Amino acid sequence: MTPSPGIAHLPIQKIQDAGIQATIDELAIEEPLEIRLQYGPAADRQERSVSITMRTPGNDTELATGFLYTEGIIPGVTAIDLVSTFTSNSILLSLKTTVPLDLGRLQRHFYTTSSCGVCGKSSLEALKTVCPAPQPGRHWLVTPDIIYDLPDQLRRQQDIFGSTGGLHAAALFDIQGNIISLKEDIGRHNALDKLIGSCLQNDHLPLDKHILLLSGRACFELIQKAAMAGIRVIAAVGAPSSLAVELAQEYNMTLIGFLRDHRFNIYTGSHRVRI
Amino acid sequence: MTPSPGIAHLPIQKIQDAGIQATIDELAIEEPLEIRLQYGPAADRQERSVSITMRTPGNDTELATGFLYTEGIIPGVTAIDLVSTFTSNSILLSLKTTVPLDLGRLQRHFYTTSSCGVCGKSSLEALKTVCPAPQPGRHWLVTPDIIYDLPDQLRRQQDIFGSTGGLHAAALFDIQGNIISLKEDIGRHNALDKLIGSCLQNDHLPLDKHILLLSGRACFELIQKAAMAGIRVIAAVGAPSSLAVELAQEYNMTLIGFLRDHRFNIYTGSHRVRI
Repeated sequence: MTPSPGIAHLPIQKIQDAGIQATIDELAIEEPLEIRLQYGPAADRQERSVSITMRTPGNDTELATGFLYTEGIIPGVTAIDLVSTFTSNSILLSLKTTVPLDLGRLQRHFYTTSSCGVCGKSSLEALKTVCPAPQPGRHWLVTPDIIYDLPDQLRRQQDIFGSTGGLHAAALFDIQGNIISLKEDIGRHNALDKLIGSCLQNDHLPLDKHILLLSGRACFELIQKAAMAGIRVIAAVGAPSSLAVELAQEYNMTLIGFLRDHRFNIYTGSHRVRI
Repeated sequence: MTPSPGIAHLPIQKIQDAGIQATIDELAIEEPLEIRLQYGPAADRQERSVSITMRTPGNDTELATGFLYTEGIIPGVTAIDLVSTFTSNSILLSLKTTVPLDLGRLQRHFYTTSSCGVCGKSSLEALKTVCPAPQPGRHWLVTPDIIYDLPDQLRRQQDIFGSTGGLHAAALFDIQGNIISLKEDIGRHNALDKLIGSCLQNDHLPLDKHILLLSGRACFELIQKAAMAGIRVIAAVGAPSSLAVELAQEYNMTLIGFLRDHRFNIYTGSHRVRI
């Protein structure tokens, strides 16, 4: 296996009962990534920092693209003219001169400081202005057997998480339950931004015929980002929050939690699960 | 048991193998809290929003106080004149008219968007200007048996986590391993802010003769907040990140990870563990 840019090796001491063992451990790397934007008409180009996020290196372009899209700052990947990295922890995205930028939206983003990012109730409102109401797409159903199998597929594919135990994963499956894409990061929202950014770059949006699997808990911000990508079915290995369920209901999404050991809970949208 | 303000009840469907069961589930509540500051001399009072965080309701005053302290915005609880809550999701802290406020520090904070908040390398620098280098305090040692027992004590005390599975916890122990304080939140940094804010209000800082237990992973931001409170020994049930270890080393802290099932790893500061 090729060494991953997301792993650091460190000498540690393992203690068990009365024993001690010196060994080398693998740690998930956590480093800041500054996302900078260049924008405005040719005669008046501006540049500014829009986010500094603690992330695991790797897929930085997908992370930046996904972040800007899921936060409603850019309408799509075609808005981006050029991506440049000057240092390993800074990425500059130059928007096309014709793309308008909503600085108010950027400003709002500066008010977020939590792992579950955006500002709740008020951003529930903000979301509605960006994220179109879900269209009544073609109806499809998923069986419990397909759902039961998702975490196993995720584990088989995860290269970093298995060794460090320190990373979150977001994985995309088709409706037959085949894994299509997997991204990992120390921040759960970053893993999802990387996943959506990668789909955006490959022109795979909207993801309304896919299942999203989250390796941990489902909080408001993750549902919001998934909604932006058109995702209808989300399964989380961990618990959802109250606001996550509320938002999923509002967007007619299917939200599954505690998916492990051949069981799961349906929090909303059970009409998509064939029981 | 009295109902907790942090729990919501929701009808769900439990699916297991081919069975389905309608039941009521308990969810961790996730709601935004806006922290507002009133500051400046009597003749020129200003007010502004400094943070909106997604949190689990409860201990909001401790959360706001701890946040402002661990981010280096206020020097201590005596800087606060009055705390007012106008709605359930907004809290206003009025600083004494004599307390200077570093607006630059506030500005920097707006650049954070990750679950592991602050801006990494550059805030490693920022931290040094706020957080005094650790004083060579009286030396004390902790035994593996005391450490092994911490998670069990945490579980016995956790009232919300047990039922929802959706909350992070931060707990403080004395050096004999007796639990002193426990706070829970959907955001791990919020749980720690609540814990430190509560100690700050009770005039218990610095916490250099205590052990901090984190229910999940240890990332950079948590180590930074612990350093601000003078904590020297941190044990996490989950994995630490690379930057968390780096910061703990720099501040001569003891950082323990993967504490579960009578075993743990020492990532740095093993001189405080009697083996």
